Amino acid sequence: MFTLDPQLEADTLPVTDMRLCTVRLMNDANYPWAILVPQRGEMADLIDLEPADRATLALEADAVSRALKSLTGCHKLNVAALGNVVRQLHVHVIARFEHDPAWPAPVWGKVAAKPYSGVEGETFAAELAAAIREH
Amino acid sequence: MFTLDPQLEADTLPVTDMRLCTVRLMNDANYPWAILVPQRGEMADLIDLEPADRATLALEADAVSRALKSLTGCHKLNVAALGNVVRQLHVHVIARFEHDPAWPAPVWGKVAAKPYSGVEGETFAAELAAAIREH
Repeated sequence: MFTLDPQLEADTLPVTDMRLCTVRLMNDANYPWAILVPQRGEMADLIDLEPADRATLALEADAVSRALKSLTGCHKLNVAALGNVVRQLHVHVIARFEHDPAWPAPVWGKVAAKPYSGVEGETFAAELAAAIREH
Repeated sequence: MFTLDPQLEADTLPVTDMRLCTVRLMNDANYPWAILVPQRGEMADLIDLEPADRATLALEADAVSRALKSLTGCHKLNVAALGNVVRQLHVHVIARFEHDPAWPAPVWGKVAAKPYSGVEGETFAAELAAAIREH
């Protein structure tokens, strides 16, 4: 039984569901930043997944990575499973630019989130969903 | 042709070589912190790997994760491919504790590295190599 963590839900916009993961867009216009959440019961670490799910997660994170890179032309991808604050297993895929507000540091805890304005977030989420389907 | 990045080499101690990755121990006693470096030519992002190597990397990162967890009894694992500073593709696997110096933040840029003293680093690297062989 899967329920999205309320904090993850509050911080993000829906993008699409893949075979294993629900994909969300972090509501932070500072960085094109997706989060993949495996739709499984209570799990905290990558090694908690069944082997087949673990393999699927890697494929899905790669598809989201390629989609973000093709949409944004980013300089680098950051892919991370941390989960020290929000325990529910989730993987960050972040498109990084040499001119972004945290570069070259990791994004966490650097600058306050800048929520998307108007329909900007929903529009980008829809573009990302379409790009994921192509990758 | 693979050559370990000089910065990664300087910051770490050797642990063991797996099928794809050479495993190193970050010379920072603040956290039990391994780095996996795929022994392949110039690559920066996970999506640069061939699909078979990408699958192997996930398996090897999981084996190192299980080894670190069984050795240390950590509360959480952090697994990340960032590479904004050192470009050569590498994956961090970090055993986190609720009492470690950066908790709950990610480890990067929080506190200065605390090099292992005496043979402490080599001893832990040898224990980690043995644990990886069991996982």
